[in-house]
Amino acid sequence: MLFNHLCQTVEESPFYQLIGIRLAALGNGWAELTAVPLEKHTNALGLVHGGLIMSLLDAAMGNAVRTTGVKGVTAQCQTSFFSPARLETSLRARGEVVKKGGRLVFAQASVFAGNEEIAQGNATFFIIGNVD
Amino acid sequence: MLFNHLCQTVEESPFYQLIGIRLAALGNGWAELTAVPLEKHTNALGLVHGGLIMSLLDAAMGNAVRTTGVKGVTAQCQTSFFSPARLETSLRARGEVVKKGGRLVFAQASVFAGNEEIAQGNATFFIIGNVD
Amino acid sequence: MLFNHLCQTVEESPFYQLIGIRLAALGNGWAELTAVPLEKHTNALGLVHGGLIMSLLDAAMGNAVRTTGVKGVTAQCQTSFFSPARLETSLRARGEVVKKGGRLVFAQASVFAGNEEIAQGNATFFIIGNVD
Amino acid sequence: MLFNHLCQTVEESPFYQLIGIRLAALGNGWAELTAVPLEKHTNALGLVHGGLIMSLLDAAMGNAVRTTGVKGVTAQCQTSFFSPARLETSLRARGEVVKKGGRLVFAQASVFAGNEEIAQGNATFFIIGNVD
Repeated sequence: MLFNHLCQTVEESPFYQLIGIRLAALGNGWAELTAVPLEKHTNALGLVHGGLIMSLLDAAMGNAVRTTGVKGVTAQCQTSFFSPARLETSLRARGEVVKKGGRLVFAQASVFAGNEEIAQGNATFFIIGNVD
Repeated sequence: MLFNHLCQTVEESPFYQLIGIRLAALGNGWAELTAVPLEKHTNALGLVHGGLIMSLLDAAMGNAVRTTGVKGVTAQCQTSFFSPARLETSLRARGEVVKKGGRLVFAQASVFAGNEEIAQGNATFFIIGNVD
Repeated sequence: MLFNHLCQTVEESPFYQLIGIRLAALGNGWAELTAVPLEKHTNALGLVHGGLIMSLLDAAMGNAVRTTGVKGVTAQCQTSFFSPARLETSLRARGEVVKKGGRLVFAQASVFAGNEEIAQGNATFFIIGNVD
Repeated sequence: MLFNHLCQTVEESPFYQLIGIRLAALGNGWAELTAVPLEKHTNALGLVHGGLIMSLLDAAMGNAVRTTGVKGVTAQCQTSFFSPARLETSLRARGEVVKKGGRLVFAQASVFAGNEEIAQGNATFFIIGNVD
């Protein structure tokens, strides 16, 4: 039921639709989301904008948190960019809960382009309630 | 000439167009960009997705860096979220270069909704060349 | 009373004594702490170790939080290093509360060597109670 | 030769001696360092100061970078604190190089107290030369 609910809310999220983020897999404490960088995601330099990567990482971690049954808001999120994303090469972000406390949840995530890890992130979530 | 060039490239950036980021002001070492959160920016909880805020902060800092005449790629970017953004309430992000070294540039940024500071960020950029 | 208490606890903190951190000034929502880098603070490269800078930043922010009457534990802390610290050149860190919520406090800090800002940091604190 | 050199410089580092950081293990792209929290590491609340954890994480990552043959300075370092360290319970930090580029090296680290992961960190290093 929880996982069905998460699948549905990801599919229906307007922001994910806008930038092309989709759910690929869910488990207890983790989530994988994907996006394919297209011309619409590029910046003035012709490179895929970091905003896509950061949104994908945040989404992967936020949904990982939600698989544990709680709703959290992001208090802070940090991303390290190892390599640029390439157009048409699908990105897969895996988010994992690292530590779940009473009010704070710590998560980390990696973004892969094929087998190459191109970015890593971590975030701190503040729990505001249970997933409905 | 540099500022004209930056204005044009921001206007023409596909990702900025996709998520609704616009240039508001530019100066030597700083840039202000705006976005209006709409229903398309919301997540499954009905809240404005953090990805919009992070993209706006990164864009403000990246353009602040470019006002100094160099092109940089984001090596890391961190965002702290103080308060949620509200639908229809315009956001303004001000990015500033804090320290420019030979190869690294450090920048910080704040996002304001009206007079309220709702998020702060910082980023480290690696210089890859001069703005054309 | 609160400020007296803070002054005393900073003076008596074993870790601050160990690495030479002292309180310089306190106000409502901010604190300034100092340290003088000595040979004992250097690393294998002969440079002042970043651990001194990070400890000083964390201490400045933690005490800034405590001036607001609450005790917080650091959930995350990030530091950007702009320039190396120099031996015998006194460091002053100013920490400020940026946003105080019900359970989370966001703070930022800068470290100055004379007039030069050599590092910046930010931290997220989780409130665990009131200052006694 | 490189590993001998690193062992020696860690042992001789004044800051590590001051706060009690020791080298436990080294490999290609990783390093493990230890510290035992004692009363001298506590803060005004009687808790082990985060500065010890941050210094240990930075040291583990910095030495992980040096096992690859290069000297780097820390451009940014971030730490997430999951649980407090306990007095007399030995801490072990494992630092790993995640991505080594031409001028930037990205590293991550975890701190364990026994089997419990109590903190995680990441850092960006700027390469300034080769290890002598």
